[in-house]
Amino acid sequence: MRGLMMDFPLTVPALLERAGEIFGKVEIVTRRPDRSVARTTWGDVYRRSRRLASALTGLGLKRGDRVATLLWNQSEHVEAYFGVPVAGGVLHTLNLRLHPDEITFIANHAEDRFLIVDDVLLPVYEKFRDRAKFERVIVVPFGGGAIPAGCVGYEELLSQTSDEFTYPQLDENEAAAMCYTSGTTGRSKGVVYSHRALALHSMHCCGVDSFGLSMSDTIMPVTSLFHANGWGIPFSAAMAGAKIVLPGPFADAEGLLDLMVQERVTITTGVPTIWFGALEALDKSPGRWKFDWPVRMILGGAPTSEALMRGFDRHGITVNCSWGMTETTPVATTAHLRPYMNAWSDEEKYAQRLKPGIPAAFVEARIMRADGTKAPHDGASIGEIEVRGPWVAAAYYRMPEEAQKWSPDGWLRTGDMGHIDEHGYMKLVDRSKDLIKSGGEWISSVDLENALMGHPSVKEAAVIGVPHPKWQERPLAVVVLNEGAKADPAELREFLAAKFAKWQLPDGFVYAREIPRTSVGKFRKMALREQFVDWKWES
Amino acid sequence: MRGLMMDFPLTVPALLERAGEIFGKVEIVTRRPDRSVARTTWGDVYRRSRRLASALTGLGLKRGDRVATLLWNQSEHVEAYFGVPVAGGVLHTLNLRLHPDEITFIANHAEDRFLIVDDVLLPVYEKFRDRAKFERVIVVPFGGGAIPAGCVGYEELLSQTSDEFTYPQLDENEAAAMCYTSGTTGRSKGVVYSHRALALHSMHCCGVDSFGLSMSDTIMPVTSLFHANGWGIPFSAAMAGAKIVLPGPFADAEGLLDLMVQERVTITTGVPTIWFGALEALDKSPGRWKFDWPVRMILGGAPTSEALMRGFDRHGITVNCSWGMTETTPVATTAHLRPYMNAWSDEEKYAQRLKPGIPAAFVEARIMRADGTKAPHDGASIGEIEVRGPWVAAAYYRMPEEAQKWSPDGWLRTGDMGHIDEHGYMKLVDRSKDLIKSGGEWISSVDLENALMGHPSVKEAAVIGVPHPKWQERPLAVVVLNEGAKADPAELREFLAAKFAKWQLPDGFVYAREIPRTSVGKFRKMALREQFVDWKWES
Repeated sequence: MRGLMMDFPLTVPALLERAGEIFGKVEIVTRRPDRSVARTTWGDVYRRSRRLASALTGLGLKRGDRVATLLWNQSEHVEAYFGVPVAGGVLHTLNLRLHPDEITFIANHAEDRFLIVDDVLLPVYEKFRDRAKFERVIVVPFGGGAIPAGCVGYEELLSQTSDEFTYPQLDENEAAAMCYTSGTTGRSKGVVYSHRALALHSMHCCGVDSFGLSMSDTIMPVTSLFHANGWGIPFSAAMAGAKIVLPGPFADAEGLLDLMVQERVTITTGVPTIWFGALEALDKSPGRWKFDWPVRMILGGAPTSEALMRGFDRHGITVNCSWGMTETTPVATTAHLRPYMNAWSDEEKYAQRLKPGIPAAFVEARIMRADGTKAPHDGASIGEIEVRGPWVAAAYYRMPEEAQKWSPDGWLRTGDMGHIDEHGYMKLVDRSKDLIKSGGEWISSVDLENALMGHPSVKEAAVIGVPHPKWQERPLAVVVLNEGAKADPAELREFLAAKFAKWQLPDGFVYAREIPRTSVGKFRKMALREQFVDWKWES
Repeated sequence: MRGLMMDFPLTVPALLERAGEIFGKVEIVTRRPDRSVARTTWGDVYRRSRRLASALTGLGLKRGDRVATLLWNQSEHVEAYFGVPVAGGVLHTLNLRLHPDEITFIANHAEDRFLIVDDVLLPVYEKFRDRAKFERVIVVPFGGGAIPAGCVGYEELLSQTSDEFTYPQLDENEAAAMCYTSGTTGRSKGVVYSHRALALHSMHCCGVDSFGLSMSDTIMPVTSLFHANGWGIPFSAAMAGAKIVLPGPFADAEGLLDLMVQERVTITTGVPTIWFGALEALDKSPGRWKFDWPVRMILGGAPTSEALMRGFDRHGITVNCSWGMTETTPVATTAHLRPYMNAWSDEEKYAQRLKPGIPAAFVEARIMRADGTKAPHDGASIGEIEVRGPWVAAAYYRMPEEAQKWSPDGWLRTGDMGHIDEHGYMKLVDRSKDLIKSGGEWISSVDLENALMGHPSVKEAAVIGVPHPKWQERPLAVVVLNEGAKADPAELREFLAAKFAKWQLPDGFVYAREIPRTSVGKFRKMALREQFVDWKWES
C-alpha cells in the first residue's frame, strides 16, 4: 500500500526559491582580494543565480552538463552553487591548490564544459589551460581586473539575461554537484551528489545535534567551498536563512578573528590545523578580540587536539568535532555531550567531546575487523569504519576499478580506523595507512600527535611509522616548537609517558620548522614518510 | 545524469534501530491510570516494538494491512507507532473521543484488521464492537485489569515471540501510518503517511527553527498520540534521542505541571485551550511549580492568544506558535523571532510571535484569493492558505469525491484563511467557515476571541457569525468569565474598541459556563452556531 503523500522532489530550486522569498534581506559578506568587505544578500544570490542559470542555458548547457568553478570563498561561488544545479547542470568545484596536472586530469575526466574562474586565479588556470577543454571560460572580476580576450565576463553575462527563468523539472536523484577527493594517495576520484543528498544533508545540518544552523546564525566557513562540497554550507545556510561570511582568499589568523568580531560570527568551520594560529593570536593579545556572544567552531577533516579545544574554551569559543569525507557530502557525525555526561569529570568530558560523535539519523556506521567480522560497539574494538546512508556515495564517477572501496553488501569503506563506544560515539584512531604496526600491535599516530600538541612548548607535531628491523615499524615524532620554546626528546617522552604505554612512545624525535600540509591544510604524512624512509634507528 | 549516492530509503526501521542502539538508556515515562509513574526506555521500546512486529506478523499481518490503536499517551502507544510500520503494516490511530458511530465508520472504512486497545478503554470499544470487524483485539493491561475472553493479552503476545525479527525491505513511499481528520464538519477523511513523509517531518522537527528537538530534551506531548499523527512526536523524539513524558489519560492542569517539574520537561505541545487551566494554576499558586531551566511550549491546532503567551512568559515558559493539520503530518510552520526582530517593540514582537510562522523547508505556502489569483505576501492580502510539500497529503484514502480539496495544480486547500507577511510569516485570520461576513466585509472571529481573552475577567471566549437581516451576519461573543469576576457587555465592547473598528465589534454578548470543545480540545463553533441559529438581534 502506497502512502498518499505528495510526490514533491527534494531539489535545489526549492531551497533557492525559499531563500529568495523568506531570507531575501539576510546578508552574504565577502572579503575581497584588496581586503575590503563586499555585501550582498540571499535576495541578490537568488536573482543572480537565476540569471546565471539562464545565461548558462543560453550558452547551451544541457541537463547533466558539468560546470567547473575555480573560485575562492566568495558570494559568486555561492551563486554558482545554486545557478548551476537549478539549471539542471552539475556544479564541479575544482580544488585550486592541487597540482596543475591533477586539475587537468580532474577537469578532463569530468568532461567539464564550462569554467567559472576568478580573475585573481587566472594564473592557476594558465598552468593547465592548454590541456583543458572548456568550451567557455567565464571570468569573475573578483580582483577588479580586466577580462582577458577569449573569455566571457561574469557580470556581462548576467547583465545580458533577464530575471525570468523557468526551472527544468528535476528528479531528486539527478546529479546536482560533484567534487573530486583530494586524497593523499592515488588518483583523485569523483563523487557525484544528487539533489536529494544535498537536501537531506542540509536538513541534517540544521538539526540541533549537528551544526544546529538557524536563521539566528552567522556562519563563516573557513573550509573551502572547493573542498568536500564546501561542507554543504551554501545549501544548509540557504535552508536555515543564516548569514554567511566568506573570507575570500584569506585564512590568516588575525584576519579571520577580525572578521568574526566585525560580523558577529556565531559559527565557523575548519580543519583543526587552520585554527592553531588563531588560538595563538588570541592567547598573545588578550582582549583584542572579544566574543561576548556564543560562538561555536565545528572542526573536522582531522582529529582535534585537547589543547586546541581547551584553548578555545578559554576564549569562550566552543569546539564541536565532526567527521565526514568528500564521499559523505560530507557531514556524517557530530559530537555534542549528552545530558548525563554533564556530570562527568572535566577529563572525561573532553575525551568525549574530542570524539567526532554520533552518526546522523539515516547514516549508519559499523566497525569492521580485518577478518571481515563486525566489531562490537564497546569503545575498544578497533576496525575500519564503514558507513552507509542517503548522502553517502555509492560509487566514484567513471572509475569501476575503485569498486573495492565498497563492501560486498554496499557499505563505504572509509579507510579510517576507529571504534564506537557504548554511547554511540565514534572515535578515529587513525587512517588505516597511518596506524603504526609495531611488534604485532597497533599504535595510533593521531593520539600521540594530539597528546604532544598538549605540551606547552609544542606548536605542531606529526607522528609517522618508520620501518624497523625488529618491530616492523616504530613511531617517529616530527615536532615544531613554539617560537623560542625548548623541549628535548627526554622531556617529550616523559610528558607522553603519563598517557601511553612505554612501547607506544616514539623512539625518535625530529625538530622541524613546519609540518607539510595537503591542499586543504591537513598534515601530509605521506611526504613525511618519504622524507624519513631511510631513517636509521639507534640500536 | 544521475547522482552516484546510495539508494538508502527513509524508513521507520532505520529510526528504530538507531534509537535502540544509541539512545537505549533514554527514558520514556508514563503516568498510568492510578496516577503512578511507569518508566521504560528507548531500548525497551526497541525490543518490545520488534516483538510486536514479530507477533503481528505471526498473526498474519501482511504488507499494508492496517492495525488500529485505541490507546492513551503511554509507552505501549509508542511501541505500536514503531512495531506496526516496521512490520510493513499501517498504524491507524483511532480517536477515542469521537462518537462510536464515527469510530465504527473510520475503522471499517480503513478496513482495520487488528485492534490494540487499553483495558481502561474497553468501555469505548464496547460501544462499537458489534459493528467493527477486527480479526483480533489485543488488550494492553494499562489499568491492570484482566484480559476479557476472546481478546489477546498484549504482554502475553509479546512474551510468546522472540527478539529476532527481520524487517521487510520497505520502500520509502509505502504507507506507514494513517489518521482520520477529526474535522468539525462532514465525514472523517483518512490521511495516509508514507515512511518518507514521517522521516522528513522528523528531520524538520529536529531543526532549530522548528521544534528544535534534541537529545538534551525531555518532551511531554499533551497533544494526543491518537490525533493528527501525534504531531509526529514518537518519530521525531526517536530521531533526536529525546526523553518522552506521557501523561496517560490525564490532562488536568495541576497533574501536567507536577509532571513537568518532576521530570524536568523542556518542551511540551498542545492546543492553546488545554493550557488555559495551567496558566491559571501557575498564577494562583506562585512558587508551587518552579521552572529554573528553559521550557518551551509549542502551541498549535488553533490560534494562541496574546494573554496566554504573555502569561506563560511571566512564568519563564516560552510559547512558540506552530501550524499544521492532519493532512500535513502535521507540522508545516513554526514561529521564532528573526534576529532583527529583537530590536522591535514588545507589542510588535508579540504580534509576530503569535503568527504561526515560517513554512518548513520544502513546504510551500501561498494565499489564494476567491478569484483564483495568488495574493501578494504583504501581510494584508487575505485568501485561503494552500500548501504543498513532501509531507503534505495528495489525496484522502478512498474518497475520490473529496478531490476538490486540492487545486488543479496540486496544492492542498487548507480551508484556513490568512495572509503571509514580508518576513515570510503566515497568519491565520480564520477557518474559512468561521470568518464572519458582515455587509460585504470580513470579520475575523479568531482575532476578536483572542482580544477578549486578554481581558482580565475573561477566561474563555468564542465569537461566531449569526444571521442578520441587514448585514448578512454579525458577530456574537460567547464569554466564560473567571470565577467571581464581572464584566458587562458595555465594558467588553469598550475593551475591544481599542483594537477594532466599530463595525467589527460583536453586537451581542452571551455569558456561558463553558465553550463546547471538539474531541481534541478546540472550540466547537459549529455547536455554538447551531445553538444560536435562532438568535434575535435587537433592532
